[in-house]
Amino acid sequence: MTTSVTAYAAPAPKAPLEKTTIERRALRGHDILIEIAYSGICHSDIHQVREEWGSALFPMVPGHEIAGVVTEVGPDVTEYAVGDRVGVGCFVDSCRECENCRAGEEQFCLKGEVQTYNGEEYDGSPTYGGYSTHIVVDENYAVRIPEGLSLDVAAPLLCAGITLYSPLAHWSAGPGKKVAIVGLGGLGHMGVKIAHAMGAEVTVLSQTLRKKDDGLRLGADHFYATGDESTFAELAGSFDLIVNTVSANIPLDGYLSLLKRDGTLVHVGAPENPSSFSQFSLIMGRKSMAGSKIGGIRQTQEMLDFCAEHGLGAEIEVISGDQVNEAYDRVVAGDVRYRFVIDVASLKG
Amino acid sequence: MTTSVTAYAAPAPKAPLEKTTIERRALRGHDILIEIAYSGICHSDIHQVREEWGSALFPMVPGHEIAGVVTEVGPDVTEYAVGDRVGVGCFVDSCRECENCRAGEEQFCLKGEVQTYNGEEYDGSPTYGGYSTHIVVDENYAVRIPEGLSLDVAAPLLCAGITLYSPLAHWSAGPGKKVAIVGLGGLGHMGVKIAHAMGAEVTVLSQTLRKKDDGLRLGADHFYATGDESTFAELAGSFDLIVNTVSANIPLDGYLSLLKRDGTLVHVGAPENPSSFSQFSLIMGRKSMAGSKIGGIRQTQEMLDFCAEHGLGAEIEVISGDQVNEAYDRVVAGDVRYRFVIDVASLKG
Repeated sequence: MTTSVTAYAAPAPKAPLEKTTIERRALRGHDILIEIAYSGICHSDIHQVREEWGSALFPMVPGHEIAGVVTEVGPDVTEYAVGDRVGVGCFVDSCRECENCRAGEEQFCLKGEVQTYNGEEYDGSPTYGGYSTHIVVDENYAVRIPEGLSLDVAAPLLCAGITLYSPLAHWSAGPGKKVAIVGLGGLGHMGVKIAHAMGAEVTVLSQTLRKKDDGLRLGADHFYATGDESTFAELAGSFDLIVNTVSANIPLDGYLSLLKRDGTLVHVGAPENPSSFSQFSLIMGRKSMAGSKIGGIRQTQEMLDFCAEHGLGAEIEVISGDQVNEAYDRVVAGDVRYRFVIDVASLKG
Repeated sequence: MTTSVTAYAAPAPKAPLEKTTIERRALRGHDILIEIAYSGICHSDIHQVREEWGSALFPMVPGHEIAGVVTEVGPDVTEYAVGDRVGVGCFVDSCRECENCRAGEEQFCLKGEVQTYNGEEYDGSPTYGGYSTHIVVDENYAVRIPEGLSLDVAAPLLCAGITLYSPLAHWSAGPGKKVAIVGLGGLGHMGVKIAHAMGAEVTVLSQTLRKKDDGLRLGADHFYATGDESTFAELAGSFDLIVNTVSANIPLDGYLSLLKRDGTLVHVGAPENPSSFSQFSLIMGRKSMAGSKIGGIRQTQEMLDFCAEHGLGAEIEVISGDQVNEAYDRVVAGDVRYRFVIDVASLKG
């Protein structure tokens, strides 16, 4: 028997979100029921509600930065107990059989992992995300939120945090490494915090110096405006790793020129249009350009443990459910420092 | 006192090469005089003679695939003795002080390494390449050609060989790895031989199946035509490493789709025009696109030792000096299997 729960949903493409009721499935053997406390707003929520990434499923309950507490467990659950603090990120299932799933890289499931919302379970039922009082999820696709990490600042770690942690860990940010973070938004601000906590020397590359004080406060050692052409001359050949969080087209040859020999420019976002560059920019200095997408469940847990150990959470602005449409407009306008988080208690009653 | 030696030179941009006399410097302390036996013809020789890569220095004596025998040594030389078989590749000096030189990656010298021809020594004197009976080079920029490797088939290893060996070694081609070589020309045919000798499973990706028998004979396990669209569907997600030897623009998204998770597409050549791709092609599967340029002196020696151990040389067509202009036309037409090598003895008398 399903359970009716309150949610904010977009009834149709581009429509404002409104309060509604959705059904959550009855617990299967390995399912846990989570009472959601906070749900972050990711820019991708807006892209999907507005069908900017192609046709989507409606009604849509967005939200893949979910933090809450376990309130019920299925009969076969071994990992979690009632009262445990848990998170759910961008996917809620994967095939578990392909080489990527077996390697713990479920975000690259060859069958296609099940998106937390705007997706379909393998049985064809639609998925609904975190703008909702409860969610049911298989225990293998939840992660534990360590003590010492508040649920509100933890929520955005489930997407923004892991999106930056994963490439920083994969490409070995750490002591002695010079790391640049391009863009200081919801993703970038977590990149600065995490790279700094890993021990790297961190530079923010932002269009203007407007957020310089913030950047330095968050842990950056240096802050440069990319709108100033002299930045590219001054920083030529400087970085071991550049993580690009900007989803618009950027001048790739310019950014590649900022890498040292064997350095890597990693994209965690992608513009709609193709990107252009000269292969010479890679050949001179044996440089690499790469991409990275969230992280697997194991690494997401590692990230949360790392953030708890280093006292890192997202910089957030907490809103109530009825402010979500206004928040969307502010995200699009770049008017948030640095992540909106919905206080899901506001959905009740 | 300089020494006059016979050479083939282009007197002016796009002019045919003709027999002439050039001066080689008197031996300095660490210099060795090499009597050149064979000099390979690299496509880049033609680009430079024809000023297709920007303005060049004339008269130009091309040639950076040089194999010969030491006939005289300077007073401070410790590495080589008269009679030693040696090679010279794409550069003959570097600053020796920058972080790349100190790391043995002189090909990425931050001051700019001295090109074997169409370059200038740090004192401003022009450099002349291997289409010549002799060359004078600092012993630190020569490599030893091991016994068992004939000088004729060794010559092309100094550019084509190291250009492929370096990325194959850097990105760990070997047993259990699936490697594709794009293009079966002077570079690609060495890639097939070396990757096969390293123990990788090797696939050639060529426009047509015209060279299939050659490819398999050289060591490829598989051979596919990229002109056949079904190739991209069939090989999707197959390779750990793809080395692209083609210097024209190729459809990058298509080639990236052939990589496994964490796979790398390495360019060793570059088209004149920018390349275009979707950043999504990198993000999905955490893939990388990289570049590689020849190799350092230490790695060039390692490559020659590897080739000698595995009995690998280039597939060559030996020509006399007076055939060089005709050979250029045939290189441009793709009519060589797989490298022209000038028998430098033909220049004498």
